[in-house]
Formats: sequence, structure tokens, C-alpha cells
Amino acid sequence: MKIGVIGGGQLGRMLALAGTPLGQQFVFLDPAADACAQALGEHIHADYSDRDHLRQMADECDVVTFEFESVPADTVAFLSQFVPVFPNAESLRIARDRWFEKSMFQDLGIPTPEFADIQSQADLEAAVTRIGLPAVMKTRTLGYDGKGQKVLRHPEDVTGAFAELGSVPCILEGFVPFQGEVSLIAVRGRNGETAFYPLVLNVHDKGILRLSVASAAHPLQALAEDYAHRVLKQLDYVGVLAFEFFEIDGGLKANEIAPRVHNSGHWTIEGARCSQFENHLRAITGLPLGSTAKVGESAMLNFIGEVPPIEQITAIDDCHLHHYGKAFKAGRKVGHATLRCTDNQALDARIAELQALIGV
Amino acid sequence: MKIGVIGGGQLGRMLALAGTPLGQQFVFLDPAADACAQALGEHIHADYSDRDHLRQMADECDVVTFEFESVPADTVAFLSQFVPVFPNAESLRIARDRWFEKSMFQDLGIPTPEFADIQSQADLEAAVTRIGLPAVMKTRTLGYDGKGQKVLRHPEDVTGAFAELGSVPCILEGFVPFQGEVSLIAVRGRNGETAFYPLVLNVHDKGILRLSVASAAHPLQALAEDYAHRVLKQLDYVGVLAFEFFEIDGGLKANEIAPRVHNSGHWTIEGARCSQFENHLRAITGLPLGSTAKVGESAMLNFIGEVPPIEQITAIDDCHLHHYGKAFKAGRKVGHATLRCTDNQALDARIAELQALIGV
Repeated sequence: MKIGVIGGGQLGRMLALAGTPLGQQFVFLDPAADACAQALGEHIHADYSDRDHLRQMADECDVVTFEFESVPADTVAFLSQFVPVFPNAESLRIARDRWFEKSMFQDLGIPTPEFADIQSQADLEAAVTRIGLPAVMKTRTLGYDGKGQKVLRHPEDVTGAFAELGSVPCILEGFVPFQGEVSLIAVRGRNGETAFYPLVLNVHDKGILRLSVASAAHPLQALAEDYAHRVLKQLDYVGVLAFEFFEIDGGLKANEIAPRVHNSGHWTIEGARCSQFENHLRAITGLPLGSTAKVGESAMLNFIGEVPPIEQITAIDDCHLHHYGKAFKAGRKVGHATLRCTDNQALDARIAELQALIGV
Repeated sequence: MKIGVIGGGQLGRMLALAGTPLGQQFVFLDPAADACAQALGEHIHADYSDRDHLRQMADECDVVTFEFESVPADTVAFLSQFVPVFPNAESLRIARDRWFEKSMFQDLGIPTPEFADIQSQADLEAAVTRIGLPAVMKTRTLGYDGKGQKVLRHPEDVTGAFAELGSVPCILEGFVPFQGEVSLIAVRGRNGETAFYPLVLNVHDKGILRLSVASAAHPLQALAEDYAHRVLKQLDYVGVLAFEFFEIDGGLKANEIAPRVHNSGHWTIEGARCSQFENHLRAITGLPLGSTAKVGESAMLNFIGEVPPIEQITAIDDCHLHHYGKAFKAGRKVGHATLRCTDNQALDARIAELQALIGV
């Protein structure tokens, strides 16, 4: 079976590492000449809107998926005429736009921070009056890793903020004094079967995920699964979906969804019976889902900008390096490592050991 | 770092799956146009003795290894002028020839079945007189998966046997009424560091490995490690070495070594903290060795001739398919699956479930 992937970065690369042992072959469409997934499959070197090359991918592949949510809607619509594309176009449409996304949460009864649609500086000022400060202003589309957003703390931060974010449609979100950020990696098969990994505790720095720790019997697991299930069903979703929440006052407020395999699920490669990557591939190809149960206690640390010396990473027991084969560049995710232990006390010590290597 | 592999079959493929996350790139030299490892690296499509292409590989790669022991000696000698080759030429010379191999065991005080060098039918008859029947006659080189051998049970089996095996140098081995076949996957780094996986119990059928079960605290573990350590040191070995033993009367008799990653170590991909593939790559690139400790209880079943329906394999809990992407053909190893459980009772049930799929 041949799998087409729109995008050829590290997520595509890890999909191929998971799918090759299932006998799958991979085709990546990516405009970057150095797309790091190309080591593991065919690279169609073309723009995402290049219909000739999209048609080539559709003709070669049995199913197409993507590794980032800002795939142009036209790309998915065009491909869908010729080949199944999962997750579906509607899921992408919702997930790529923070306004549609938050509105869907609201419609499904899933708590969110207060939010408002911002089409102008006047909209922004009205929304600030209603929601109050501090608040976070984010572009409705194309934001990731803290890009395309601005925290508004004082009235003077509001002045000119709409222009500052490019005079594009935005959303204003009320500030949530959360106790923690958690994510749920969910997966739904073509037959509607669902599975959920244990909640993950995430630590961000400057908008970029640094550390994810898989939780043990988190008290909000069932609530998170309930919320995710509503979304999966609403969207008739197929594949892995990541759901990010703020944990606040013993409850959850939905932050955002990502219609794809997700950085906070990378620990599942070694830390779960079946990884998020294999489960995504199982889902989109109609195979039974694999177990999401943990194998020991796990944590994942991102390598931002550069990968520490490999001989030092590999000297840590049960530490699994994932080097993405990308050029090193400040602020860029270039790899991660997963730690696996038999208990959480040992895990904490191991996290500290790895953090010392990274210098955090 | 770029790794060259002589041979591009499933072992090369699994090496690349293990090494890609370490940031390594792979080059396979294999005369087969459909070499299954090529999905994961560059394929130099050439004969093993093609010096132009060997030179190309040496120039491109930082280190070269191989996935089968019958690599021509000249190939290794030629490559070694330009690039480090591990395991070394001496290890290959010994491991590819059953006479050299058994003689080394004897020199190192490692018990073996009785054996004799056979260069003619007369040699064979003299050896049968000394060793007795039943006995096993094997070609000194190029035998694998039960090929190139003949069991001699009765005097009439001896008649013409030398010609029957091709009138090539052979070895005669006394029959060992063994209680079981076990193997030890050992690894030695460039700095002499060694590590050993738990002993594996192997079940063969018609000379082909069918089932490997990783043992728990096997009483002969220390003895096997002692024997393997003698061999690793004698050969100044670098990389993974598989050591097959017969278990008899509470002791071990050495059967053979394979100077490479080995089918009976495939379970380590999911069943050990660091797999034999990653450890081989760590060893030959001078990285610290990874932990050989088990993760749960594991067994591996080979798929011979064909891979059962994938939807049935993936329906078994914590069952990990490894499809080699090779054309199906009777008697050919085309894939395997590893089962992982928390206890041995569950593992036995799971093995039966998978065996039912294979029809054994």
C-alpha cells in the first residue's frame, strides 16, 4: 500500500519509519529541496498547489494524508476527487482556523477560554472591553509554535495590535490562569473505532513545546476523552487528532486541536504499545487500531536549534534519540529524545540528566 | 554519518530503520534490483566484487558493515583500504567457514559437537568411523537456513554424500541429542565494551527459524556470555555477533556464530531497551552501547513464504509486524512479528493466536 503525505518534514519521516514495517511505501509532496522525510520515500518536489504533481501523487497512492494543518483547502479538494484523503477536508477547514475551531468547541458544549472574532482594530477594542485584559490575540490561521500571536497585558498593548499582526482576521482569547497544559492524542478509524492515549503534561517555552510527560491515571482522562470523542464524531474524523487543553480549577478548557500526529505524542514511539504514527496509518488504511496503553513511564524532550552530542544522549539509559536530519537553526525543532523508565522517580532524574545536556 | 551496508535485504532494511533516528544515512550495495532495503537509502546496484562501485561506497561512507557472512574476502580486504569495515575481515574469515569456526571454539575451550574436516569421500568415511552415526554433513561455507547440509543416519546415507553436497570442502558434525537450541546476541563496541541480550530459545523447522522466545533469567546465561566473550575478544570483534548453542545435559555446545545482526535477535526491536540493530550501529560508529535489558516478555515468529493478512496480525494486542517488502516465495523469509506481553502465560496464548494465523 502506498501512502501519500502532503509535507515531508519530521512528522512525515516518523510516519514512514512506522509504516515501512507494515509494508507501506511513502510519497512526500514538499516544495523544500531538503525535506527530511525524503530519506524514506519518494519526494515529489513541488508546491502544494501544483495540480500536475498533486495528480501524480493521487495516481500513485492508495490514500493521502498530511503532516500540517495549513494545507490549502483547494489542495485537499482537488486530491479528494481522485484518492481518499484523511483526515477529511472539513476537519482541516475547522482546525486551521481558530475561530471555526473555538466555535465548534462551543457548539459541542466543550468549555473554552472566552473568545471573539477580530476583523478590525475596532473589533479588537470592543472585544477587549468585553473580555478584559490580559488576553491573547492570535491570527485565525497559520499560527504555530507561538508565531502569529501577541499577549495584550496593558491598554497600550492594544493600540495598533491588529496592524501589528498583519491586519488579518484574528481571534482574541481571554487569558486563562491555567495550572497546566495537557494534551490528548486521540485516534479514530475508518469504521468509527476510537482510542485515546494517556493525557500528556506539556511544558512550553516561548510558545515552543519543550517537554511532554505521559501521565499515569490522570483524574481528567475521562473528561478529556469525552470532549475529544464529541469532536471526532462531529467531524467524522479519521486518523490521529491532538487535542490541547488548559487544566484549570479541576476542569479543562479547550485550547486547540491539531488534525494530525503531534509533537506531544512523540513519546508513544517507545512509550506506548502502538505509536501515534502507526495508529494514524492504521486508521487511514482501515486497519484495526493498536493499543494505546503505556509501556513504562515516559517523557519526551525536544531539541530546539541543535541536537546535543549524540554520544552523550546515547549514554543515558533507555533514552531514544530521534534526529530529524534537518539543518540546525535557532528556534527550529531538529530532534527529540524519549526517556523510558519503570517508575516516575527514576524518570524525573533522567529528565534532569537530559535537560543538563540541552542546557535548560 | 553515512553507513555503507554490503547487502540490501531485510537486515539492511532494519538497520536503516534503527539508524535513521540516530541521524545516520544508508548506502546499500546489492546486485538485486529489488533489494528491499533500498526504500530506506541509496542503492548501489552492483556485484559484491565490483571494485568501481565498492570504491564509490568507500568514498561515500564513514563506516561499512555487512548483513551476511558470505561476503567475499576480497571485497572486505579491498574496502578496508579506504574505510573502516566492522566486523573485521578476520571475523568474517572465521565465521564464514565451519571448519575455522569450530576449530576456534575448540582452541578457546568452548565445547562443540565432535567434528571433522572433509575434503573427499574417503575423509568422510574415516570421519564417520570415528564420530559415528547419526551425524550431520555441512558444506564449510555458504550454508544457511538448512541449505548445504545433509543428515547421515544410516551407512547407505554416507555413500556418495560428498558428491551430493557438490564435492566441496565439508565438515562432519556428530549428532547432538540436544534439549533445545538457544542463541546469544552479543555486541562489542570499538572501545571493547561488551553487552549481551538474554538468551533466546529458538525453534527451527526444516532448517529455518520459526520462533524465538526471549528467556527470563536462563540458568546458562552466564556460561553463554563467558563463551561469547572469549570469541569477541579473540576476534577483536566490533558489532553484533550471534552465537548459536545446543543446550544439552545442563550445558552448552557451540553450534555456530553469525558475524552480524541475527534473526533470533529481531525481538529486541520492541522487546529490549535498545535493539540489536541500534546496538550494532552504536558499536561500529563508536557510540556507547545501549541497554540490552528486556521490556516485558517477548517472542518473535517468522513469516515464511508469505505474510498473513495484515488486518489479522494488527488485530493482536501488542503485536508488531515487520513486513520486509519482498516478493512472496515459498521458503523465503518475508517478514516477522514480535509479540510483547507483561507475563509468560499471556505470551504463550498470544504465540498460539499468531501461529493459528500462519497455519502452523
